[in-house]
Amino acid sequence: MAPVKKGILERLNAGEVVIGDGGFVFALEKRGYVKAGPWTPEATVTHPEAVRQLHREFLRAGSNVMQAFTFYASDDKLENRGQVLRITGAQVNEAACDLAREVANEGDALVAGGVSQTPSYLSCKSETEVKAIFKKQLEVFMKKDVDFLIAEYFEHVEEAEWAVQVLKTSGKPVAASLCIGPEGDMHGVSPGECAVRLVKAGAQIVGVNCHFDPMTCVKAVKMMKEGVEKAKLKAHYMVQPLAFHTPDCNCQGFIDLPEFPFALEPRILTRWDMHKYAREAYQAGIRFIGGCCGFEPYHIRAVAEELSPERGIIPPGTEKHGMWGSGLEMHTKPWVRARSRREYWENIMPASGRPKCPSLSTPESWGVTKGHADLLQHKEATSTQEMKHVLEMQKKAKSSA
Amino acid sequence: MAPVKKGILERLNAGEVVIGDGGFVFALEKRGYVKAGPWTPEATVTHPEAVRQLHREFLRAGSNVMQAFTFYASDDKLENRGQVLRITGAQVNEAACDLAREVANEGDALVAGGVSQTPSYLSCKSETEVKAIFKKQLEVFMKKDVDFLIAEYFEHVEEAEWAVQVLKTSGKPVAASLCIGPEGDMHGVSPGECAVRLVKAGAQIVGVNCHFDPMTCVKAVKMMKEGVEKAKLKAHYMVQPLAFHTPDCNCQGFIDLPEFPFALEPRILTRWDMHKYAREAYQAGIRFIGGCCGFEPYHIRAVAEELSPERGIIPPGTEKHGMWGSGLEMHTKPWVRARSRREYWENIMPASGRPKCPSLSTPESWGVTKGHADLLQHKEATSTQEMKHVLEMQKKAKSSA
Amino acid sequence: MAPVKKGILERLNAGEVVIGDGGFVFALEKRGYVKAGPWTPEATVTHPEAVRQLHREFLRAGSNVMQAFTFYASDDKLENRGQVLRITGAQVNEAACDLAREVANEGDALVAGGVSQTPSYLSCKSETEVKAIFKKQLEVFMKKDVDFLIAEYFEHVEEAEWAVQVLKTSGKPVAASLCIGPEGDMHGVSPGECAVRLVKAGAQIVGVNCHFDPMTCVKAVKMMKEGVEKAKLKAHYMVQPLAFHTPDCNCQGFIDLPEFPFALEPRILTRWDMHKYAREAYQAGIRFIGGCCGFEPYHIRAVAEELSPERGIIPPGTEKHGMWGSGLEMHTKPWVRARSRREYWENIMPASGRPKCPSLSTPESWGVTKGHADLLQHKEATSTQEMKHVLEMQKKAKSSA
Amino acid sequence: MAPVKKGILERLNAGEVVIGDGGFVFALEKRGYVKAGPWTPEATVTHPEAVRQLHREFLRAGSNVMQAFTFYASDDKLENRGQVLRITGAQVNEAACDLAREVANEGDALVAGGVSQTPSYLSCKSETEVKAIFKKQLEVFMKKDVDFLIAEYFEHVEEAEWAVQVLKTSGKPVAASLCIGPEGDMHGVSPGECAVRLVKAGAQIVGVNCHFDPMTCVKAVKMMKEGVEKAKLKAHYMVQPLAFHTPDCNCQGFIDLPEFPFALEPRILTRWDMHKYAREAYQAGIRFIGGCCGFEPYHIRAVAEELSPERGIIPPGTEKHGMWGSGLEMHTKPWVRARSRREYWENIMPASGRPKCPSLSTPESWGVTKGHADLLQHKEATSTQEMKHVLEMQKKAKSSA
Repeated sequence: MAPVKKGILERLNAGEVVIGDGGFVFALEKRGYVKAGPWTPEATVTHPEAVRQLHREFLRAGSNVMQAFTFYASDDKLENRGQVLRITGAQVNEAACDLAREVANEGDALVAGGVSQTPSYLSCKSETEVKAIFKKQLEVFMKKDVDFLIAEYFEHVEEAEWAVQVLKTSGKPVAASLCIGPEGDMHGVSPGECAVRLVKAGAQIVGVNCHFDPMTCVKAVKMMKEGVEKAKLKAHYMVQPLAFHTPDCNCQGFIDLPEFPFALEPRILTRWDMHKYAREAYQAGIRFIGGCCGFEPYHIRAVAEELSPERGIIPPGTEKHGMWGSGLEMHTKPWVRARSRREYWENIMPASGRPKCPSLSTPESWGVTKGHADLLQHKEATSTQEMKHVLEMQKKAKSSA
Repeated sequence: MAPVKKGILERLNAGEVVIGDGGFVFALEKRGYVKAGPWTPEATVTHPEAVRQLHREFLRAGSNVMQAFTFYASDDKLENRGQVLRITGAQVNEAACDLAREVANEGDALVAGGVSQTPSYLSCKSETEVKAIFKKQLEVFMKKDVDFLIAEYFEHVEEAEWAVQVLKTSGKPVAASLCIGPEGDMHGVSPGECAVRLVKAGAQIVGVNCHFDPMTCVKAVKMMKEGVEKAKLKAHYMVQPLAFHTPDCNCQGFIDLPEFPFALEPRILTRWDMHKYAREAYQAGIRFIGGCCGFEPYHIRAVAEELSPERGIIPPGTEKHGMWGSGLEMHTKPWVRARSRREYWENIMPASGRPKCPSLSTPESWGVTKGHADLLQHKEATSTQEMKHVLEMQKKAKSSA
Repeated sequence: MAPVKKGILERLNAGEVVIGDGGFVFALEKRGYVKAGPWTPEATVTHPEAVRQLHREFLRAGSNVMQAFTFYASDDKLENRGQVLRITGAQVNEAACDLAREVANEGDALVAGGVSQTPSYLSCKSETEVKAIFKKQLEVFMKKDVDFLIAEYFEHVEEAEWAVQVLKTSGKPVAASLCIGPEGDMHGVSPGECAVRLVKAGAQIVGVNCHFDPMTCVKAVKMMKEGVEKAKLKAHYMVQPLAFHTPDCNCQGFIDLPEFPFALEPRILTRWDMHKYAREAYQAGIRFIGGCCGFEPYHIRAVAEELSPERGIIPPGTEKHGMWGSGLEMHTKPWVRARSRREYWENIMPASGRPKCPSLSTPESWGVTKGHADLLQHKEATSTQEMKHVLEMQKKAKSSA
Repeated sequence: MAPVKKGILERLNAGEVVIGDGGFVFALEKRGYVKAGPWTPEATVTHPEAVRQLHREFLRAGSNVMQAFTFYASDDKLENRGQVLRITGAQVNEAACDLAREVANEGDALVAGGVSQTPSYLSCKSETEVKAIFKKQLEVFMKKDVDFLIAEYFEHVEEAEWAVQVLKTSGKPVAASLCIGPEGDMHGVSPGECAVRLVKAGAQIVGVNCHFDPMTCVKAVKMMKEGVEKAKLKAHYMVQPLAFHTPDCNCQGFIDLPEFPFALEPRILTRWDMHKYAREAYQAGIRFIGGCCGFEPYHIRAVAEELSPERGIIPPGTEKHGMWGSGLEMHTKPWVRARSRREYWENIMPASGRPKCPSLSTPESWGVTKGHADLLQHKEATSTQEMKHVLEMQKKAKSSA
């Protein structure tokens, strides 16, 4: 029988670094098991071996957290996105938990269950209705006895607070992660203020994930930390950014880039970019450091390798990776062998091979985006009817643009 | 019991398009199972589930060929590269054949066994010695009864001829693929002349793989076809290029790029680049169309989708991929939904998100590279002793550069 | 006898747009008459025909202001910069005024005399000493009866205030222009606060020049305008930016770019960029719109052409320039003729032709820059001795970087 | 009275380097005296001071040749291009010669008279008609007693031969310069073959000008030299390239770039690029080294400075230019002073400041261009009527593209 593992809070309280995993929807889309657009996780039921394999690769790369692959697996989302198989959210989520647990047991990893933003909130359902959705998902996580819970990928801090409030009822540790950058949530609530609200709602760990590149996400979490400290509160911090460079994003992140989601390749971070990210996150005082969309196992391994001096642990996958490219010492060509050193890779400025393409893009979004946010500010007063009106206005704005 | 599948030559003779798979060493390096530098395939024994899963993904993406993962698995290579586990080339190759066969049986795919260039040739061993290595590998392929054989990744046409001569003794169909571009092999033998020599040596299928981007590889195969036709010979043609843009390479291909092998990310082709590649290859008369380093399953799927009108087959993986991004119709944001159309993705010029990096690099290589090639021209006369002298000269040239 | 021209304030009070000229030091450096480094204007004495010709070209391009070419012509600067000819600042300045007046009389232009920041201020001379230098220059301008005065290219608002105070004693209209961006002056005084201080010191026109690209400069002047309006003061606004794109500058502007001053070519604005600049400046309420380093006559002509509907005037030089490229209608090649339209040039994204170069650079500057500014904050207490100490520290910081 | 200067052939025969001047049409377009599209030189009559000043600047920069500003000043061109002033080609050309002579007398420079390709040739006029145009221009050059003659900017070697034959009748030295690159003239005649034909027609100096960047032009002249030497002929060589980087041009050169002629700024060469060009041209055995469109006086000065060790002469303009940026030693900021050295500028990779723009463009041209060339091959048979038909076809091809 396996020894009892230390829980997430025990680790963080002890000052340990916890390595997260990478984004499953993007990785499995490239492998053929998730459809871009709906982004739903029915593969946990239909192709469990593919999901299991990805978990194993992240474990091998050094991850301490197996997030059950339940992204967008609420029933309202599955319906909304045209999920036509007779698979319920509960089935998907149960299978996801089982796969995560199976692989977690193969190494030093915990299982996390997660909820994320709902179509119901965006269509202005009531707090009660939205919370009912989170409760339904939580039931599965409790039945499967996950190790901790994450409310992640929320653009609106209010909805995230509701999620935290629901998850808190479980008695398990709760992390809360928004998909925002330094400009704050979609209503303009600053990262600092968001973090304070989430901590007050009961989250022990707060941070950001997705939507922006690593350095931008670390910056946003720093602002969260400043806010929390200024409010004389306490929290642990987490960051799980994109593996894409996004210096040209506006407040809505990479979704507004014209390359989203099918032409982001030139923006993919190298493993050396990941070293810089891991160091920056560590220095900012963040101790739960992982990844989101675009992260492949070798990206997580780079994070684990960078922090191996602090952690005293080298990930299993390093057996197939010399630190700083030292494996190249065995390459056939002598000038490639000459690249087997840290200084070389730390300073490389990689070319795109695309001289007819620009370096930066102009984010796309509708003129009424701000109006939309303003309207949401007064969401209490808005009905689905009014929401349709907003979308209609947006459609007009788009077509006349 | 499965119906007997059509062989590779039956398919090509019938004018069918055969879709190849992608490059295993790069894909498995990112997943944590292959070490860059040695690039050896012992994972077939140590982590069969990872190799099996990658085969399955390519099958699902539309591949008709499962190449047994035997790259660089000759004993001389395994020793040379410091392979310290007690695993022999034969063990690796047997396991590779079993995994390929297992997955091939799950769909409409053939199993190919492959040999590639040897350290023995580069260190100027005799024809007899080099051929003995190929024979040893061939024994495994015969024992495992693969469907056809590929001599691939040869920089020197002479060594490829030797390989073809050995493989021909089996009576199985033989394909020969060089890792060269339009400038020809490392002795400057033109693609047309190379192809003629390979056909005369007994190859029924000739082409190129690795080292250059798709359009460059297609150009080289076109030159092969012209050479073969001019010589009044007959052959089928294959191409399995990189999934990296390499407009700035010299004759040695991507290995000389300063980004090789750990900072090639910005050069990765999008799925839409793959559509253009598949069309170009088809129009050039190439009918065995696959990929090499950098290809992920979604790249092969894009090739299969582009050619689905000609083939009348949609790959299984398309269930998770709307053609030309049509899955985006179900995206939350209306302006992302507006991207669900062919015209949008066909014309996108993706930004790198790296404004401080250049578009092109300067390939690196030693000044005496040409001298090296000249020397190899007179290889019969060279001993290992002389080779050491060349390497010594190269080291000096490098250090004084 | 020429009719009496309207003065600068009469024009601005009437809501007219006044077109400035371009930067003489950069233009004459390329023509061979100014030395980069010292940047001093002794060409007014040694090569008057070259200076006169440049004035004429700006007049022809539509300029309403001939700035006497007196940049850095204070005696302390001329000495400091190794000016070894026996030419005094007074001689240079007198010749500059004569040349400006001669050409101004050929069209609808006013003559402006200008002073700029002094080495004396930076070496911590007293207010009295610094003002004495401005007074000496002002004497020449009064003797030559220039139409108005400009205190321009000041990095420190305090020194600019001193200059304005001196120039005000003349009774002539006074403009004050800092070489700062949106981050404010070298002590961190915001653009709004700088503008308020300059207006209080007596300037009727305030704005920025040099150091940043047009859009950045317009942004800084907007901040000035907001500051002045918030303080319930009144002013006219001017902007004379670089003709170089500088999105990657830090607070010290283009001087810190590694390309300064001899490799800025790829950053030069097109005439179409100038149309956008002129429109943006006009819409921001700025009415004195000109240029600084990098501006050639055709850049000023583009500004004048963009605003010709508002002004009801087409510049003389337009006789050799079809609006929006209409002259191309007479080109030999039909596809070049197809470019003779506004839409084509408004949307062009010009390539650099330099695929091995990046898009952005990292500004260079010493680590102690901020410390330097802090020290200057307490400038009253600093002696030349202390300044030497600062420079010594800077040298160390640089060498250890 | 001035001492008699050495003629162009005396200089070249003695192995001296002759520095040419830069392109007047582009430089004067930016100064406001030439209209893009017609590109005609009536400014010699209307604004002689502007033309004289530009001559002076090139003389000061080190030019040994003052090319009379007669580009496109044949009567058929002036009419064709809608020249409505009552100025004849003869008047323009006479004024041009006078201005060139006046400035040449101020230094060590010769006066060259030039003819270039004619609309008459393109509209398929007979050899007699075309030669009559050259004769008319030659009369002026003889009357004004220029020092030598240049037939330059010819896309068709046949027309250039006709020009050389006419110019040869004068008894003056004749240079012939085509606006072609390594792919040869518009009928596909190779540079080597072109050069041989021009030498046989009587040219003592052959080379290329305009249309391509310096390195490409030097490459084309090298091919000319090889052709001439292979044919056992003798010639001197000249090169006068663009000052724009054009790695992305097709055989028609920069005219086909989408940026031509109003958005070429990011492509402008730095002075350091010019050093490399001058060295490359010198090493290729070219001894008449100058510039064409885009060259400003400082570009020519850089050529003269690079070759000053070989020539033993520093140009007058160097008084305002420290070699390799040494003037920066007197700059205020210490980190700018650190740039006053050769190594810094030799290795700089300047950023464009335009991250939303690509590095390379796709040249534009009509599909029937080749057909056009084919037709011209049989020009003898074509009438103006047929030419109109070609243009009509081109218009259709363009509009349907």
